[in-house]
Amino acid sequence: MKRGHQVTMKEIAKKLGLSVSTVSRALKDSPELHPETKLKVVEMAKSMNYQPNLLAQSLRISRSKVLGVIVPELTSHFFSSNISGIQDTAYKRGYNVMICQSNESYVQEISNIKILVASQVDGLLISLSRETKNYQHLQDLYDRGIPFIMFDRVTEEIPVSRVTVDDANGAYQVTKHLLEQGCKKVAFISGPQDLYISKKRKEGYLKALVEFGITEAESRVYISDLKEETNKQIAKQILEEADRADAIFAMIDPLAIDVMLVLKEHGVRIPEDIALAGFTNNPTSSVVEPSLTTVVQPGYEMGKIAANHLLDQLDEIASDDPQSFILDTTLIARNSTLKKK
Amino acid sequence: MKRGHQVTMKEIAKKLGLSVSTVSRALKDSPELHPETKLKVVEMAKSMNYQPNLLAQSLRISRSKVLGVIVPELTSHFFSSNISGIQDTAYKRGYNVMICQSNESYVQEISNIKILVASQVDGLLISLSRETKNYQHLQDLYDRGIPFIMFDRVTEEIPVSRVTVDDANGAYQVTKHLLEQGCKKVAFISGPQDLYISKKRKEGYLKALVEFGITEAESRVYISDLKEETNKQIAKQILEEADRADAIFAMIDPLAIDVMLVLKEHGVRIPEDIALAGFTNNPTSSVVEPSLTTVVQPGYEMGKIAANHLLDQLDEIASDDPQSFILDTTLIARNSTLKKK
Repeated sequence: MKRGHQVTMKEIAKKLGLSVSTVSRALKDSPELHPETKLKVVEMAKSMNYQPNLLAQSLRISRSKVLGVIVPELTSHFFSSNISGIQDTAYKRGYNVMICQSNESYVQEISNIKILVASQVDGLLISLSRETKNYQHLQDLYDRGIPFIMFDRVTEEIPVSRVTVDDANGAYQVTKHLLEQGCKKVAFISGPQDLYISKKRKEGYLKALVEFGITEAESRVYISDLKEETNKQIAKQILEEADRADAIFAMIDPLAIDVMLVLKEHGVRIPEDIALAGFTNNPTSSVVEPSLTTVVQPGYEMGKIAANHLLDQLDEIASDDPQSFILDTTLIARNSTLKKK
Repeated sequence: MKRGHQVTMKEIAKKLGLSVSTVSRALKDSPELHPETKLKVVEMAKSMNYQPNLLAQSLRISRSKVLGVIVPELTSHFFSSNISGIQDTAYKRGYNVMICQSNESYVQEISNIKILVASQVDGLLISLSRETKNYQHLQDLYDRGIPFIMFDRVTEEIPVSRVTVDDANGAYQVTKHLLEQGCKKVAFISGPQDLYISKKRKEGYLKALVEFGITEAESRVYISDLKEETNKQIAKQILEEADRADAIFAMIDPLAIDVMLVLKEHGVRIPEDIALAGFTNNPTSSVVEPSLTTVVQPGYEMGKIAANHLLDQLDEIASDDPQSFILDTTLIARNSTLKKK
């Protein structure tokens, strides 16, 4: 269904300097608003030739009681935890959940949105694919008035609510912990540089270094595409360097496990020779030897908050104005970094 | 939508001693069939007051190009591998995939089917919840002519195609391997007894014992509800027994890992004192110490075969007659059982 530009509530709100939620309530003739405000909104809507989106309205009125979820991948423990949180919350509130996986593909993400919207879901919870750099599909969804929010992999370019974890602070905590254990030369193995989490975690890593008097110029950042082969290659490279690192912070746990295997193969003692930490708290991390220091991301909690907020918006308990929820991470120090017990 | 009993193609087929596929083709006036057969089917259909299901027909004609998938849980590596296999295959053939999770709940499974059918998926791939003991919802789906097949957690009560792995043979392989390593007293820790995989894996375990001259009376079977606490409790119980086992075959890898942690806590050497093996090949199993001997279930392959078969049925390349695909498992012997290197 292609169509020309339709005036959105957002545009009316912008012209009047009001929130989208106020415009929405004014057009619904909400008794909470001052009659003058309502009149102002209605007149502006008329002058801009605003046409309420009937599809969106009918969606809101006759509910399917189904939420759609789009995640980049399902094999990741983090995203499957998100989904569990979303689903448990949705069920408690009488909703079902349909899930699509974008497989980290931008094209697939667009088609996921299309089929979920065609299935008349009441709202969507979206975590973006690694490839998504253009947000027109999300803008279209927004302009059609279909309620959605974003979680974990988000963009700030669309004015909808977002739920994320405090990546920078998590990376700060783990780097600081390594420095407090007496490590002087902490390396950071990052994922692809354009990933939001790569940027945020590097930010936290650098912040901790600076606090311990280490400049960015003295930092040791390695970039991996996160494939097993590359991860292991970088670990070998670090081992061969003359001025070798005495600690490694790997951006995600699976990367840390690959590094651990290489260190052990080469007879490097962990943490005595090189301390090692990851990020995510995958189930594997607590059972490897030595057990891996990592950062807990509250995946289940994140799903719960995202689902509750979207349902609150649908039930008009929460305003449609975008909110940003940033969840705290927690450091779990385990044997891979604990030098002094 | 409740309705009275509708005569199905299956019932017509049964009366005539023909396959459902033949009846279906006869009612479609397929040129492949002998005119006499077609006449026989059409007359029987009339006499039984058969009414073709228009919804199902319209589904088959105007395709949504979406497959629905129902799995018990998404946090399991095995099911997320199934989904990857299904999805990759579907995409290659121009289909999208929508996924629902039953959370091991029978009630949820029924509502999953309802919303996917309401979304007009072209067909369904279903893996049953642990709770599902009644199959009326599947029978209804079958009677409505909505194409579906089952994978991994299946029932033989509904005449649709099934894709499973050879659980009994996998368990036989791993038990035989333990006995070949010189173990004399192999314990089997099973999941709940009414689970299909518990039954099949026990069957394979007993078969191997018998081959080595050990009777069922001499077998050592322990039952766990698969919760961490119970798993660890059973491991402790085995350690305390006077005539202690010298090998443990745990029904699934996460159970084996729980057992491993207890053995290590108690200073039991693996495999020297007690050899240990699991089943599934979770990612964790290769990185624990000692690395865990296990059985590979081809989860991705299973999803691929299931999706291809369903799409072949939709495209009328494969017959609608139920087929059973049983996939081979592969033993991976690792350090947790290899006594002689």
